[in-house]
Amino acid sequence: MEESALRREDKKVVAVVGAGLVGALNACFFAKRGFEVEVFETREDIRKAKVVKGRSINLALSHRGRTALKHVGMEDKIVSKGIPMNARMIHSLSGKQSPIPYGKKGQYILSVDRANLNKELLTAAETYPNTKLNFDHKLQDWSAETGLMTFARPHGSKTQTQADLIVGCDGAFSAVRKQFLRRSRFNYSQTYIPHGYMELTMRPRNGEFAMKPNYLHIWPRNTFMMIALPNLDKTFTCTLFMPFEEFEKISTGDEVIEFFQKYFPDAIPLIGAATLRRDYFRLPAQAMVSVKCSPYHIGDKCVLMGDAAHAVVPFYGQGMNAGFEDCIVFDEIMNQFNEDFSAVLPEYSRVRVPDDHAIADLAMYNYVEVFSPALWSSGLLVIHSLEAGKTHSLFLCRKTSCFKISQRDL
Amino acid sequence: MEESALRREDKKVVAVVGAGLVGALNACFFAKRGFEVEVFETREDIRKAKVVKGRSINLALSHRGRTALKHVGMEDKIVSKGIPMNARMIHSLSGKQSPIPYGKKGQYILSVDRANLNKELLTAAETYPNTKLNFDHKLQDWSAETGLMTFARPHGSKTQTQADLIVGCDGAFSAVRKQFLRRSRFNYSQTYIPHGYMELTMRPRNGEFAMKPNYLHIWPRNTFMMIALPNLDKTFTCTLFMPFEEFEKISTGDEVIEFFQKYFPDAIPLIGAATLRRDYFRLPAQAMVSVKCSPYHIGDKCVLMGDAAHAVVPFYGQGMNAGFEDCIVFDEIMNQFNEDFSAVLPEYSRVRVPDDHAIADLAMYNYVEVFSPALWSSGLLVIHSLEAGKTHSLFLCRKTSCFKISQRDL
Repeated sequence: MEESALRREDKKVVAVVGAGLVGALNACFFAKRGFEVEVFETREDIRKAKVVKGRSINLALSHRGRTALKHVGMEDKIVSKGIPMNARMIHSLSGKQSPIPYGKKGQYILSVDRANLNKELLTAAETYPNTKLNFDHKLQDWSAETGLMTFARPHGSKTQTQADLIVGCDGAFSAVRKQFLRRSRFNYSQTYIPHGYMELTMRPRNGEFAMKPNYLHIWPRNTFMMIALPNLDKTFTCTLFMPFEEFEKISTGDEVIEFFQKYFPDAIPLIGAATLRRDYFRLPAQAMVSVKCSPYHIGDKCVLMGDAAHAVVPFYGQGMNAGFEDCIVFDEIMNQFNEDFSAVLPEYSRVRVPDDHAIADLAMYNYVEVFSPALWSSGLLVIHSLEAGKTHSLFLCRKTSCFKISQRDL
Repeated sequence: MEESALRREDKKVVAVVGAGLVGALNACFFAKRGFEVEVFETREDIRKAKVVKGRSINLALSHRGRTALKHVGMEDKIVSKGIPMNARMIHSLSGKQSPIPYGKKGQYILSVDRANLNKELLTAAETYPNTKLNFDHKLQDWSAETGLMTFARPHGSKTQTQADLIVGCDGAFSAVRKQFLRRSRFNYSQTYIPHGYMELTMRPRNGEFAMKPNYLHIWPRNTFMMIALPNLDKTFTCTLFMPFEEFEKISTGDEVIEFFQKYFPDAIPLIGAATLRRDYFRLPAQAMVSVKCSPYHIGDKCVLMGDAAHAVVPFYGQGMNAGFEDCIVFDEIMNQFNEDFSAVLPEYSRVRVPDDHAIADLAMYNYVEVFSPALWSSGLLVIHSLEAGKTHSLFLCRKTSCFKISQRDL
């Protein structure tokens, strides 16, 4: 009894700020290593919440993400609740559908439900006796010197906790990151793209999926685009992407139908005209931001992971997957440096920053590619440097042309 | 009497946050237009302060800056206290000096004393009866909806003021800008360069300048560089630029001398070995940041100008000058739109963002050019898009080469 008490005293405390996808997964990684893990989340427990606000409803889980889930024994459970998508299904204006496979036969990405994935990961984290989840804890301030954090609680009270390591997994608008921004020599950028997005639901028809389920459906329309991912309940979540000013042009139900008739006529009967008229106005179009920063750590006390370190635009389907991979990379460096935070954190920044920046660039490049005529006409000049190993590829997009200068050209 | 009181009531209040160079100049511009101008500055009045902390001692005033000073009748006064620099004077390793003129015969830029320029502008602003300078006012919070600002005063007290327009001229680490960062669709980047800088003083010799005064002296040394600007008191302010890790390698007086003997031997007798040994350790090397953002305004209530909107690296000599030019551009748009803030502010962002971004890019390009071997060896990849009118020039710098792709090449 005394020995166990002593061992408990010796344990280092890791505070994971944010109980979203990457925070919950990371809690499992740190718990597995035997740390005293405390997770702090601004919002209530989504497993008890009635309405889950914000963020997209479903996500594409790929190899990177699955590998990370496997590390904490969660892969099978999550995969069993995902829907394989073997190909993109391109919808032409006339309604013709043409598949473009993601890879070789048998290869696929998985459509997974964000809320369910998050709930499963929270429950998994909670199975470790050395993990405690703290909801309704909004980070107000923290010290990079002492690891002391101050949280606002409901009804105006405050609480303080100290940790040996603070892991900021609190998303694109990270409260942990604010402290980084105040420090000298922290590089940071946030770039909002001119497009917004809106989610619409396509209900089942006669108890079955309204379209072929094992595809990521895409309606490419130059400046506009709609995609649809299948859900377990046989609905599809449709996401409409277009420039904010185009969203704002539509202000009545008739205009919604007119717009869909012009650009996505085959989707009207599938979603339903009445649903379209109503759902289009339920929420305003949401903004999309790309965040890049460097370094990811301060001293031996704090590290940023997931969207807090590298929010990306969704056009490469690798935001969550890259965040999950962050956990594996950190875990490997923990092995390499014997859990010595003063060595692990700088190494993590050194190794991870270039790869995350490459993912962010690839996502932005895909955005440019998908919507390029729109961007050209707006005069946007986007230059990409895709760094993978030793290969630099530059993509130059101008009003009149968009092309790649390969390493050979340089 | 009653009529004058009424007129006073009608006057709109413009709050200028920051009493640095751009803030003080801007106060003159707004005062000249008849606004009720309130200037708020975190620090004490530099005209009364014993020690002025931070920032470089002298600056190069060029055409842009002079034009803005002329608008408020300050050009002659400031120019009379500046020292013309007709050319750069390049110092080779052997001590040979070669001039490179700035322009045609008779053209020059002016070395001006930052503190004196700031003091003169504050005094000029105060000559307007409708201007009030408030020192020791640190902005804590402000509302983009109401224009209400909260300031922290010395000894823990607080004060609130409301303005019709808040003009954020509070520098690279702007407190006003923090509110912008919290809003959606605000694009922002801060980039620290790997170089730091340190200022050293070269005293007069026998009552005269130690070097030829009408030059900007430059010692280019690949990864290192020193420059020297003349001051009215016949000293020169020398600024040593080098990567932070190089600064950190030098930890004793002997190492300082050894370093100067290797790279700047002709400067040792000019600065003096004893001075060098002492002054090198007086302050740590300072960081340099490039800040770009967009838009510059929120609604009809707030606008950012000067370094708060576009801090640049100093290698193009246009930071202050671009900030001064901001004041003219805003003033012209005020004429154009009849001082209607709801029209002036969006137009200012539309017109000014691309030009300020171009200045920031040019400054960064000059940084790359000056120190390029150092950057190549650090693997930094810098891509520049210099947009002037319809010409795009791209500068690609890689480990092994740095070259320009002109529009024709594209």
